[in-house]
Amino acid sequence: MNDTSLPRLAITMGDPAGTGPELLTRALIRKDVLKVCRPIVVGDARVLAKAREYTGCKASIQRVPRFEEADPSEDRIAVLDLQNVDLASLELGAVSTMAGEAAFEYIRTAAQAALTGKVAAIVTSAINKEALNKAGHHFDGHTGLLADICKAPRVTMMLAADRLRVSHVSTHLSLREAINRVQPERILEVTSLTLQAMQQLGIDNPRIAVAGLNPHAGENGLFGSEETEFIQPAIKAARAKGWEVSGPYPGDTVFFRTLQGEFDAAVAMYHDQGHVAAKMLGIWRGVNVTLGLPIIRTSVEHGTNFDLSGTGKSDPRSLVEAILMAARLAGSRPA
Amino acid sequence: MNDTSLPRLAITMGDPAGTGPELLTRALIRKDVLKVCRPIVVGDARVLAKAREYTGCKASIQRVPRFEEADPSEDRIAVLDLQNVDLASLELGAVSTMAGEAAFEYIRTAAQAALTGKVAAIVTSAINKEALNKAGHHFDGHTGLLADICKAPRVTMMLAADRLRVSHVSTHLSLREAINRVQPERILEVTSLTLQAMQQLGIDNPRIAVAGLNPHAGENGLFGSEETEFIQPAIKAARAKGWEVSGPYPGDTVFFRTLQGEFDAAVAMYHDQGHVAAKMLGIWRGVNVTLGLPIIRTSVEHGTNFDLSGTGKSDPRSLVEAILMAARLAGSRPA
Repeated sequence: MNDTSLPRLAITMGDPAGTGPELLTRALIRKDVLKVCRPIVVGDARVLAKAREYTGCKASIQRVPRFEEADPSEDRIAVLDLQNVDLASLELGAVSTMAGEAAFEYIRTAAQAALTGKVAAIVTSAINKEALNKAGHHFDGHTGLLADICKAPRVTMMLAADRLRVSHVSTHLSLREAINRVQPERILEVTSLTLQAMQQLGIDNPRIAVAGLNPHAGENGLFGSEETEFIQPAIKAARAKGWEVSGPYPGDTVFFRTLQGEFDAAVAMYHDQGHVAAKMLGIWRGVNVTLGLPIIRTSVEHGTNFDLSGTGKSDPRSLVEAILMAARLAGSRPA
Repeated sequence: MNDTSLPRLAITMGDPAGTGPELLTRALIRKDVLKVCRPIVVGDARVLAKAREYTGCKASIQRVPRFEEADPSEDRIAVLDLQNVDLASLELGAVSTMAGEAAFEYIRTAAQAALTGKVAAIVTSAINKEALNKAGHHFDGHTGLLADICKAPRVTMMLAADRLRVSHVSTHLSLREAINRVQPERILEVTSLTLQAMQQLGIDNPRIAVAGLNPHAGENGLFGSEETEFIQPAIKAARAKGWEVSGPYPGDTVFFRTLQGEFDAAVAMYHDQGHVAAKMLGIWRGVNVTLGLPIIRTSVEHGTNFDLSGTGKSDPRSLVEAILMAARLAGSRPA
């Protein structure tokens, strides 16, 4: 019986043909996870039961019709069972319409539960974009899908790994187009979302570093003018609000400085600038947080790893970190 | 008396007002350094003698008129004394014409020594660009200056930190202009220079990974077309030469994979892509190698750190790594 004062988290199972189910059987019975939340899988109970065989997990599966009835523990994994996978026809490691549709339903159900206050946050396992699209859901991944479900078009992606937290002015665009998105309004918006996230993490007056776009942050206008034209005005506007925002700092050192504790978070100007930094700390360690949704949502930073499905060899660290981060954003503080 | 079969290296003192001199008094008396080379400072003997006071270095200073007479050891630092600093008027931590001119002369002397075979390689300490320009030498730093001295216009910068080695298609340009430089001829040139450097390091058939320009290496043309238009043709041309070159790989994971040993080196499409990766491993650990010169040249990856001049607190790790790398490129293999 776990502590009912802890926040309930909905954890989606991800693509049933991927490593999501087996990672859940590793992560959800851990003491550090159960100390900060009550995790409930949104998935298929038979797939989860089967996944225990790959990882040697001895916990029982508690099928619950409603989140409120879940009672997860070190020997019991709670699951809101959508019963939407035919185990006999499920092929591990393969793209299928059935698996894509199932993964979609887990996300929709979890997001609705968060929107209606039944859970405090959602944590998503990896999905396969091709399967999602095969099932008729035309999104570039979780972020677009959740923005649609939650009717929140102005979102951004924050990666967190160790002490580095980095949010992005843009993500899935060509680099040429990403440069065009480096505009004061958007930089200010992303800075504001980052600030709110830091406050949710319990940091009252966070120090936020803004990266430059060009090498050496433009070296005083020698290599490009975006710093003076667009980034500095955004920083000025942020500071006028009383926020502790500074920069633009050279991209090649600002993320290391953030990791070292000089700043609480950094704002990257485009996808690879922030992603290279976060992923150098280890592909398995990162957590992805969507900022700007009306719900709290974190995610693993890796994919479905179809090649590892059924082997029990995949690494649950990113999932564990994503759960701990969601619990912390939901206000759970370990005693 | 050190092993005369070891390669002689010229180590420039850098800006006399910076931390270069004191870093030399830390690095050049180390066993690991003296095991692979005979280091000779190109600098000012009095500045170096004074710098010993900041670091508590007990070694004597051996002033030599010619590189051939140097006999460096754990108790003796050899210096080709250019006598070009007036110690009384030298202000630590300040930009000056005298210091800029002195730093320029160290580089020119060291480069000439390498061009004429008196030393096997040069290792450069940090200079101050403003001081260099004040002294009338209008270059953006070492790389441009050395390209000019050596009459070698087609160079590239490789950073090395731990097992990551990354060279760059372009460096000191705006990001917009850097995108325009992503052209097959230049990618092939940088790949070829990287391959030669790996062979100098003793790797016969190096595995070289080429990064994409856009997020997810363009995700099959969804985010930009440079991968299919320019990068893939360059990789194809490289492979046609029999080289083990592959990609384009997503920028956010290729450098971590290289660090993990999957590749011997990676080619980054622009400054921050490679620099963010290398510097996440620690600002003090990196080494900068100029590829494409007729001489071997490595450098510290940090600046003059004027704020630390005279404190004895600066960290010699990057200088030590730069010396070890130069010795290895010069064919020195520790027994």
